[in-house]
Amino acid sequence: MSELLWQKPGVQVDAGIQAFLAGDDVLLDREFFLHDIAASAAHAEGLQRIGILTQDEVVGLKRELATLAEDFRSGAFVLDARFEDGHSAIEARLTERLGDAGRKIHTGRSRNDQVLAATRLWLKAQLERLAALAQAIAKIALDRAEAEQALPLPGYTHLQRAVVSSAGMWWAGWAEAFIDDALRARDTLALVDCNPLGTAAGYGVNLRLDREHTTQALGFARMQVSPVYAQLSRGKFELAALEALGSATLDLRRLAWDLSLFTSAEFGFVALPAQYTTGSSIMPNKRNPDVIELLRATHASVAAARTEIEQLLSLPSGYHRDLQASKGAIVHGFRRGLAALALLPDLLANLAWRPERMRAAIDAGMYATDVAVEAAIAGVPFREAYKAAAADAEAAGQGRAPEDSLAARTSPGAAADLRLQALRARWDALGMPTA
Amino acid sequence: MSELLWQKPGVQVDAGIQAFLAGDDVLLDREFFLHDIAASAAHAEGLQRIGILTQDEVVGLKRELATLAEDFRSGAFVLDARFEDGHSAIEARLTERLGDAGRKIHTGRSRNDQVLAATRLWLKAQLERLAALAQAIAKIALDRAEAEQALPLPGYTHLQRAVVSSAGMWWAGWAEAFIDDALRARDTLALVDCNPLGTAAGYGVNLRLDREHTTQALGFARMQVSPVYAQLSRGKFELAALEALGSATLDLRRLAWDLSLFTSAEFGFVALPAQYTTGSSIMPNKRNPDVIELLRATHASVAAARTEIEQLLSLPSGYHRDLQASKGAIVHGFRRGLAALALLPDLLANLAWRPERMRAAIDAGMYATDVAVEAAIAGVPFREAYKAAAADAEAAGQGRAPEDSLAARTSPGAAADLRLQALRARWDALGMPTA
Amino acid sequence: MSELLWQKPGVQVDAGIQAFLAGDDVLLDREFFLHDIAASAAHAEGLQRIGILTQDEVVGLKRELATLAEDFRSGAFVLDARFEDGHSAIEARLTERLGDAGRKIHTGRSRNDQVLAATRLWLKAQLERLAALAQAIAKIALDRAEAEQALPLPGYTHLQRAVVSSAGMWWAGWAEAFIDDALRARDTLALVDCNPLGTAAGYGVNLRLDREHTTQALGFARMQVSPVYAQLSRGKFELAALEALGSATLDLRRLAWDLSLFTSAEFGFVALPAQYTTGSSIMPNKRNPDVIELLRATHASVAAARTEIEQLLSLPSGYHRDLQASKGAIVHGFRRGLAALALLPDLLANLAWRPERMRAAIDAGMYATDVAVEAAIAGVPFREAYKAAAADAEAAGQGRAPEDSLAARTSPGAAADLRLQALRARWDALGMPTA
Amino acid sequence: MSELLWQKPGVQVDAGIQAFLAGDDVLLDREFFLHDIAASAAHAEGLQRIGILTQDEVVGLKRELATLAEDFRSGAFVLDARFEDGHSAIEARLTERLGDAGRKIHTGRSRNDQVLAATRLWLKAQLERLAALAQAIAKIALDRAEAEQALPLPGYTHLQRAVVSSAGMWWAGWAEAFIDDALRARDTLALVDCNPLGTAAGYGVNLRLDREHTTQALGFARMQVSPVYAQLSRGKFELAALEALGSATLDLRRLAWDLSLFTSAEFGFVALPAQYTTGSSIMPNKRNPDVIELLRATHASVAAARTEIEQLLSLPSGYHRDLQASKGAIVHGFRRGLAALALLPDLLANLAWRPERMRAAIDAGMYATDVAVEAAIAGVPFREAYKAAAADAEAAGQGRAPEDSLAARTSPGAAADLRLQALRARWDALGMPTA
Repeated sequence: MSELLWQKPGVQVDAGIQAFLAGDDVLLDREFFLHDIAASAAHAEGLQRIGILTQDEVVGLKRELATLAEDFRSGAFVLDARFEDGHSAIEARLTERLGDAGRKIHTGRSRNDQVLAATRLWLKAQLERLAALAQAIAKIALDRAEAEQALPLPGYTHLQRAVVSSAGMWWAGWAEAFIDDALRARDTLALVDCNPLGTAAGYGVNLRLDREHTTQALGFARMQVSPVYAQLSRGKFELAALEALGSATLDLRRLAWDLSLFTSAEFGFVALPAQYTTGSSIMPNKRNPDVIELLRATHASVAAARTEIEQLLSLPSGYHRDLQASKGAIVHGFRRGLAALALLPDLLANLAWRPERMRAAIDAGMYATDVAVEAAIAGVPFREAYKAAAADAEAAGQGRAPEDSLAARTSPGAAADLRLQALRARWDALGMPTA
Repeated sequence: MSELLWQKPGVQVDAGIQAFLAGDDVLLDREFFLHDIAASAAHAEGLQRIGILTQDEVVGLKRELATLAEDFRSGAFVLDARFEDGHSAIEARLTERLGDAGRKIHTGRSRNDQVLAATRLWLKAQLERLAALAQAIAKIALDRAEAEQALPLPGYTHLQRAVVSSAGMWWAGWAEAFIDDALRARDTLALVDCNPLGTAAGYGVNLRLDREHTTQALGFARMQVSPVYAQLSRGKFELAALEALGSATLDLRRLAWDLSLFTSAEFGFVALPAQYTTGSSIMPNKRNPDVIELLRATHASVAAARTEIEQLLSLPSGYHRDLQASKGAIVHGFRRGLAALALLPDLLANLAWRPERMRAAIDAGMYATDVAVEAAIAGVPFREAYKAAAADAEAAGQGRAPEDSLAARTSPGAAADLRLQALRARWDALGMPTA
Repeated sequence: MSELLWQKPGVQVDAGIQAFLAGDDVLLDREFFLHDIAASAAHAEGLQRIGILTQDEVVGLKRELATLAEDFRSGAFVLDARFEDGHSAIEARLTERLGDAGRKIHTGRSRNDQVLAATRLWLKAQLERLAALAQAIAKIALDRAEAEQALPLPGYTHLQRAVVSSAGMWWAGWAEAFIDDALRARDTLALVDCNPLGTAAGYGVNLRLDREHTTQALGFARMQVSPVYAQLSRGKFELAALEALGSATLDLRRLAWDLSLFTSAEFGFVALPAQYTTGSSIMPNKRNPDVIELLRATHASVAAARTEIEQLLSLPSGYHRDLQASKGAIVHGFRRGLAALALLPDLLANLAWRPERMRAAIDAGMYATDVAVEAAIAGVPFREAYKAAAADAEAAGQGRAPEDSLAARTSPGAAADLRLQALRARWDALGMPTA
Repeated sequence: MSELLWQKPGVQVDAGIQAFLAGDDVLLDREFFLHDIAASAAHAEGLQRIGILTQDEVVGLKRELATLAEDFRSGAFVLDARFEDGHSAIEARLTERLGDAGRKIHTGRSRNDQVLAATRLWLKAQLERLAALAQAIAKIALDRAEAEQALPLPGYTHLQRAVVSSAGMWWAGWAEAFIDDALRARDTLALVDCNPLGTAAGYGVNLRLDREHTTQALGFARMQVSPVYAQLSRGKFELAALEALGSATLDLRRLAWDLSLFTSAEFGFVALPAQYTTGSSIMPNKRNPDVIELLRATHASVAAARTEIEQLLSLPSGYHRDLQASKGAIVHGFRRGLAALALLPDLLANLAWRPERMRAAIDAGMYATDVAVEAAIAGVPFREAYKAAAADAEAAGQGRAPEDSLAARTSPGAAADLRLQALRARWDALGMPTA
């Protein structure tokens, strides 16, 4: 590791301890590095506006920051264990290239607000992506709901056959689920969309920093006013973001459960394109829906990331090094969560129903509720109609067809009246995804 | 237990199994009972609008529902283990009093959407209360921030003395924290503010239910369109609500940590009114800040409730009995969480600073950052100024006073420029609490 | 509430704060009350042995403690909100009945070690019960494995049909699982089987307490030596116990999943006795396996209890009031967990296989692995044999029968060689359950 | 990626899907690779014993496996994304070098039992290491307890000064804690010490595999009998191991909390060697105890790993791909947990007390309990003695010295009678660490 920014003369550094302190922090900082560079440029501009840096210095700093970003993207610069962290790497590079201008960049800034700014920008990008994916998934579900309104599908409760449902109803359910998930991602984005840069180590600084400028330059919706709260929001905002992600991955877990059952030989309602399946090392006959199982497993990783941060946050106010562990958690959680959600649009667009199997699974007992309600419409008190139908549910439903049951299912949102226009209106109101 | 709604002739009921099935469900239903009654009245109105019930029947049903609510409130009616659950209790009462009108009330309804409607109304009420409490806490913090801007308080990072801070900064931090918590409670309220009534067992029903009417009658902002999603949202919305609560109780945990330290003999910054302390059974000398410790412990209960529901939600779509356990979880979590938050306004309003102890804890080294920044303003590159100040931090800061340090802390949000007006504007925008 | 033990003159008690402090603590103490009484008697004996109490005083104390226990069991004494907690109730009763002897009982004792002793005894009883239930479940599984070795059952991986298995193999799997769970319960019992009584508030006391006596009188295997560790073990031992419970309820979750699938119409391998099913409020045709779903849900409650305690334990050493919340957690977790496990022996003994459905689900492809291994035995390198069989798995397995496949499955532990005697030997080594 | 073992002709492989399926599995397999090689050698020996492989083939296989292990250790062979996983890499290498012998190695084995065997061996090694570290920590604590029995340290409850304690008591507490942690690691090791190799895909195989041989060759204490249970134990055993680790890291969290407070300026009881502290990027005056904070944060990572696996395990019996995510979890959790524990022996050995600060924090009120107990010894009922001492606790304790208080603290385990010999006896009984 290169010299430590804060190193004091005469203090022996122990390699084992330094390795423990570093962890994989600098590798994780690769995720945040470009955001850190962008925030450094904004900070430099702000320092110029209050007379700490000259115009020439800022021009130089911005040029070198742009070069560093370019080198990082191209691989010419590698952020690795030579550096304590990404922040040190930036200051070291600027000092090496520019001398005193580099030594000035940290004026009025602490690594505490620097890391907050970089992770905040990163969180915003992840939440944008989450919203966009949820919208894309909802879109496909809406379209297939429209197209497959008349396709009968057994409806289950308790994994027991209950009443006739339709592929359209199934798709509409997922559509509304992911619309809500997109909405929640956007709400969360709005919550965290505030600028922590300029709060220093959590107590501000004796400089009239131009925080309005950095707020606007970095595209934040507002300033995070209190330096004490900027520190308190570390972990808190990460949790909020992971919880928004978790809302979507929990829906995904349940969707994957449906598909896991539907692709079993016993249900057999869905045929999965071959590229979504894998073979076995010992059993020649197997085509396994591994993708679906890993989709189902995804939420566990998001939950783990959430746990890791929540457990850290039993601390007094002010910065504590414990919070470093939150970096790995959000990277791990979002990487897994977004990768899984990104597979979903294609998978959903391509899965094929097996209508004959679906129809074969609809037995006469599944019409018993229809029968009871019809009697209720005819004036029999429902509880009596229910008992009559229960006496021999199979017989009561004999001779009926799924299509007729679906056609009569006229309650708003049910098979004969899916109300997709209402869902489309909510989808449209989400606005254009930008990520 | 009275006869079961769905009981079939000839099936032996095992008492041990029934006890396991029931759990404490009917006791928990006391929380939801009034909401269930309200939703039953709206459902009856809806049935009249589509010709299933006559006006007379609905008048009777609404009268008996009102009486039942009154009896429940007064204690004349006790919801207990005589009933399978609150839903059965309502139908039993209506049938007993009204005969066929009671037997008709369940037309087009399942216990599945009935429990969804009742818990949804309950969740809305809890979130309203959460928002109101967060706003009340933020208000006191804002007011004390304004009043105590000039009161020096040591600022810590890593629990080590860092730079001079102020009581005003400390309060402003909590103000911004709880404004965000209130906002999140309101966002969550908007997310869950949709009517599941009329979705039956998750697949709708062969009746043109007037869901627009029940949506409006129950004060929901919109209809939850898809019956499949109505089922999928069970647990999901409970989680979202607990996560909003958890955002506030996590802030509370950190606030309680501050107070736990500040009331220790070693810090000694805060004197707690005697009613917030308790004694020891063996140690005559003790006055313990038990309230603060139980406030700190509160989040654990909210987290437990969250865990309980999240772990349940690894299921295919459609209703499963597993979800019954979510009731106890939300009741436990919200009861503990809101009770703790409700103590906070008074506690914060009444805690007294001990200014002499706070001042005594500010040592000369805490001015070193000021010194380095002053040198940076004078043109010394910050990194050099830092090294100079680090060489003898105590000496560098000698002779300075906390008040001067605070007066110079002019970065936006810092002690000399708290920007409380910006926080008040966000507080005002939250709107009037209604709970 | 009656006068508080530790109340100091002149301190106003606020009812709202007291209610928050109390929580439902005194109600929870009902669980621990008899253990607290037993430990109080042992403590009194110990005090006599070091000359603090006379023989007469101890005779009186033990008589009154026995009466209190009797009154509590019979309902003549109700532990309720009149008392701060169970500990205060005992001291109040003894003082009321015996005067000074009652005022002496707390000599050398703190509520801190008192609650530790009572919960420790309670934990031991729960772990005994857990071990006994796990053993009972394993016993039934062993017996049915023996009886149903030849009954073919499809074996699944990825929920896809894989190879032929047998009911015997399925049962043997659960037998070994619950043997391990019983073992773990016993290991945990041994870990926590140490006496904390006599450690006072965590720092001992200026009295030569006879801890050897109380250790032996209360049936502990050893003394918990360090008073500091006695406090540190609060929560830690509760977690260990919940984790042992969780090991069994996680197995239960997976077992319930199997049964949930096997009782679906699509699999149809298992018929559940009618008393394990319930009906629907709206669908006349339904018989739902609610018991199985609530068994599956059980682990979520255990996990919640674990979370609640783990989140509390981010504290320095020494007692903190935060730990009070651990009481509710263990009561909730063990009550739910043990109730679920207690249903299992009967349920497993009574569930009926549907052999024709099991046989019908075994298709020709499921023999492909057998075919490939046979070729490997004949000298074809396995990877080539695999490819040959994969080319047309259905064809390769044509004409085979499940019985033949099972008979050839001779690897140790497989269908033809279940090695039940090895499992029985481990079961026997667990020893006799005492609870 | 090279050709997939199980690839079938004509199935298009999608790169994005394959990347998702692979995750970082092959990189994680580096952790398990040497164990996988060892298990492969034992499997080959077993196949020879039942006539599937010739002696020459086994000699060749074992030579090439040894070479591969050597190449892996030296870096000549890199396990990377060219391979689907470590298992495929081994088979590919053997086939490339040996032809048909390589194609035969997978006879009677599935990747399912292969990964079980490799992770089982790895888990055993981690648990050995855990036990050894806990023993080493306990050893230092025992030695310092012995050496520092007479050093007064304030004892706290509720973070409030309570009674006089000693450094000796503090150390003895941690000693007993880590002895229990070592014991639990050993119990867990015994629980998981069983051989899953030879269970194939969870249903055994039509070969009389010599599982006794592989059990003994790999050093397992017993065979894991049931193939169904072998699959069920995936995740279950990982959880048990993480819970044993968590027991130690939770103790560590509380120990780190003590040190975090003790190294604050306000407490000031402990001086940390300079190599355990770091500086600040902005505040020249800071020396921060980052190591202690990262030690405190460690449990969060272990808890996260636990969560990840627990959430996966809501599945029917049989293998599911979901379980792949458990690999990353155990590697992450154990790496962080063991790295933290490994720092502890040196840190504990080197931390220096500041006796004058400790003594200064002992105020007169801290003797009030001693005073009350003395009165109780003299015959005053304790509750009266308590009230008398409470009336003016400061006055009651005036003029006393910490040393006298400690000398009188004679209850077993307290300062004057630490009973270290009992703890040493338990430590000795743990046996020699082998890792």
